[in-house]
Amino acid sequence: MSLLVQKYGGTSVGSVERIEAVADRVSRFHGEGHDLVVVVSAMSGETNRLIALAKDIQDQPDPRELDVLVSTGEQVTIALLSMALKKRGIDARSYTGGQVRVLTDSAFNKARIQHIDVDRMQADLQARRVVVVAGFQGMDGQGNITTLGRGGSDTTGVALAAALKADECQIYTDVDGVYTTDPRMVPKATRLEKITFEEMLEMASQGSKVLQIRSVEFAGKYKVPLRVLSSFDEGPGTLITLDEEINSMEQPLVSGIAYNRDEAKITLVGVPDMPGVASKVLGPIGAANIEVDVIVQNVAANNTNDLTFTVHRNDLARAKAVLEANLDSIGAKQVLTADNIAKVSLVGVGMRSHAGVAATMFETLAKDNINIQMITTSEIKISVIIDERYLELAVRGLHTAFGLDKKSTSVAE
Amino acid sequence: MSLLVQKYGGTSVGSVERIEAVADRVSRFHGEGHDLVVVVSAMSGETNRLIALAKDIQDQPDPRELDVLVSTGEQVTIALLSMALKKRGIDARSYTGGQVRVLTDSAFNKARIQHIDVDRMQADLQARRVVVVAGFQGMDGQGNITTLGRGGSDTTGVALAAALKADECQIYTDVDGVYTTDPRMVPKATRLEKITFEEMLEMASQGSKVLQIRSVEFAGKYKVPLRVLSSFDEGPGTLITLDEEINSMEQPLVSGIAYNRDEAKITLVGVPDMPGVASKVLGPIGAANIEVDVIVQNVAANNTNDLTFTVHRNDLARAKAVLEANLDSIGAKQVLTADNIAKVSLVGVGMRSHAGVAATMFETLAKDNINIQMITTSEIKISVIIDERYLELAVRGLHTAFGLDKKSTSVAE
Repeated sequence: MSLLVQKYGGTSVGSVERIEAVADRVSRFHGEGHDLVVVVSAMSGETNRLIALAKDIQDQPDPRELDVLVSTGEQVTIALLSMALKKRGIDARSYTGGQVRVLTDSAFNKARIQHIDVDRMQADLQARRVVVVAGFQGMDGQGNITTLGRGGSDTTGVALAAALKADECQIYTDVDGVYTTDPRMVPKATRLEKITFEEMLEMASQGSKVLQIRSVEFAGKYKVPLRVLSSFDEGPGTLITLDEEINSMEQPLVSGIAYNRDEAKITLVGVPDMPGVASKVLGPIGAANIEVDVIVQNVAANNTNDLTFTVHRNDLARAKAVLEANLDSIGAKQVLTADNIAKVSLVGVGMRSHAGVAATMFETLAKDNINIQMITTSEIKISVIIDERYLELAVRGLHTAFGLDKKSTSVAE
Repeated sequence: MSLLVQKYGGTSVGSVERIEAVADRVSRFHGEGHDLVVVVSAMSGETNRLIALAKDIQDQPDPRELDVLVSTGEQVTIALLSMALKKRGIDARSYTGGQVRVLTDSAFNKARIQHIDVDRMQADLQARRVVVVAGFQGMDGQGNITTLGRGGSDTTGVALAAALKADECQIYTDVDGVYTTDPRMVPKATRLEKITFEEMLEMASQGSKVLQIRSVEFAGKYKVPLRVLSSFDEGPGTLITLDEEINSMEQPLVSGIAYNRDEAKITLVGVPDMPGVASKVLGPIGAANIEVDVIVQNVAANNTNDLTFTVHRNDLARAKAVLEANLDSIGAKQVLTADNIAKVSLVGVGMRSHAGVAATMFETLAKDNINIQMITTSEIKISVIIDERYLELAVRGLHTAFGLDKKSTSVAE
């Protein structure tokens, strides 16, 4: 029998009916002899309702008090789920983050977990109790309530699994696994049986919204096997695991295709070709708390360069203003911007040992007449920036070119 | 400058606007140099909403988990009020019952306070911070969340005032004080400047809903001056204080008139006149967890008695069934019931030193042809049970007879 940590997100516990369904699932696992720690989010909509209340009072709510406020969302869910389990004759006990000693630093709204006391949970598990824990929250060394920031319930699940040395951390959500790409865009997208932590990280950072980056990092660091499954259906989901646990025979060249429409492009024309210029450009951007994603510099012949980088679309106007204010000190001529771009990324640990992935990618895009504006690569990822209009065309073409399409059963005519 | 504990009930914090109004009031007191600990209830309606959620899952919600659930109500309010104070430039800090170490026993849903750690609050007060505490809740020795039961926020206020040796505990509510009787029934009812703890206790137990009995007992025991005021208007409210602090010159014979329509009457006809019979009757009633209020036994000539007592109307059917099941063992003839009764009580410490109050009461009722069905007295109270139809007539008549009517300014014709 295994020790399982199961995490249920907001839509999975979004109503009394959904909570009852979660209780059914938990009691089935419990009946099979598994030990269970269940981490839950706030009922969907609840966190937003609470934040709206806070914003009615303060435009920028006090960070400490905001955590006191929003942490009530998960507290409601743990109580209701524990009641639903009790109704099924299962001894369950709920704990807030503070009660189960999820000790964090004091960075309100985005705290980081420092330590988890497992004694109390282990005593409950020993007594065959189901332990129900409020995700997303903890307590700092002074006993203040903290939250881990949005999506932090996944992190709670993984951290508990690591601390308890659980056999698996199961993340229940509204999709039934990780797909080769977004099935809403590519109907032929297929669910992956397995994916490595590294690939999952790249998928997440490139726009796949299934799991929070932080929880994947955490799981990889502590080698916690992570499984993404649907709380609405049955099915094996996708296992996120260590590289070596995936048989190299089954290792595809490309595991998935991620995309992102949230970026905008900024080009600084006529930057002097001299040391320190890139930091002169990106220093003020960083100081303005604007994150930069892809950066490309083209060396030109006339001692000047064009420096191009991407930022989140919401930051575009601010980034442009920052650069224009610094144009003289940088010694550049002009700032150009474009927000009609999209990023497409191929992700796969198979790339490490195979040449030719980039060539196939560029050929595929060229065949569809899609111009590549920027390219960046890492060991297990190739990203290109293209015109947003061609995004769907590009993703579908690449999905086919790399053999990811669903094998449809042939239908007799 | 004083140390004040202010408690604001559910309607006083029922909306963002009301919370802002409370923040205005608190900041005014703070600006005058007072030190403040503010205890708040859940926003009105919130506790009922949470209980309804629980009952959707369990008819009898698990007591431990119910406390985890409903305690979120006050937690929301402390965060919002602290934000509203911060917005006004006042350093405020919120605490749940557990954080501020309101240590209780483990009787979930009706826990009793055992100890309060004041160190943390005193450090905050020293730093001129306003301390905002969630009422109604605490934590037991094992770190479980507990609640004090309905109305427990008043108790939290009084307990904090006692522990901190506050100068006054101010209970803000939707009425502007304690009245000689219910102003909705008697327009001439007047607000009392002062009333003793004992009188307030009798008023509360006889049906006046202004304060919870438990908080008055607590305040009396620890000699915490208690003031009831309106959070909607300005005004001095009513001070509840020790007997000796009320000048005997100003001591009225009767301080107030309470009434109660919630009771029903049960008469057991033909009970044998022998020792132990009353306990044979009331034993099974107590065993069925039914509370009995007034008890009267009339000794008759023929070796049988009629035993009459009152219970809450909601318990009448159950009490009748219990007695009918025990009729033979009691040796009684018949059970009669009536639910069209009302109780009227005169309350006043002045009665202790004055004879003739009862006589005046009975005369007044007789003059209006109101028949008295039962009478009980205590040192500072006389209660009668009458036909419910005459309740208003009785209360108005007594209010006038004991000189409690408002002195109306004469208006020139």
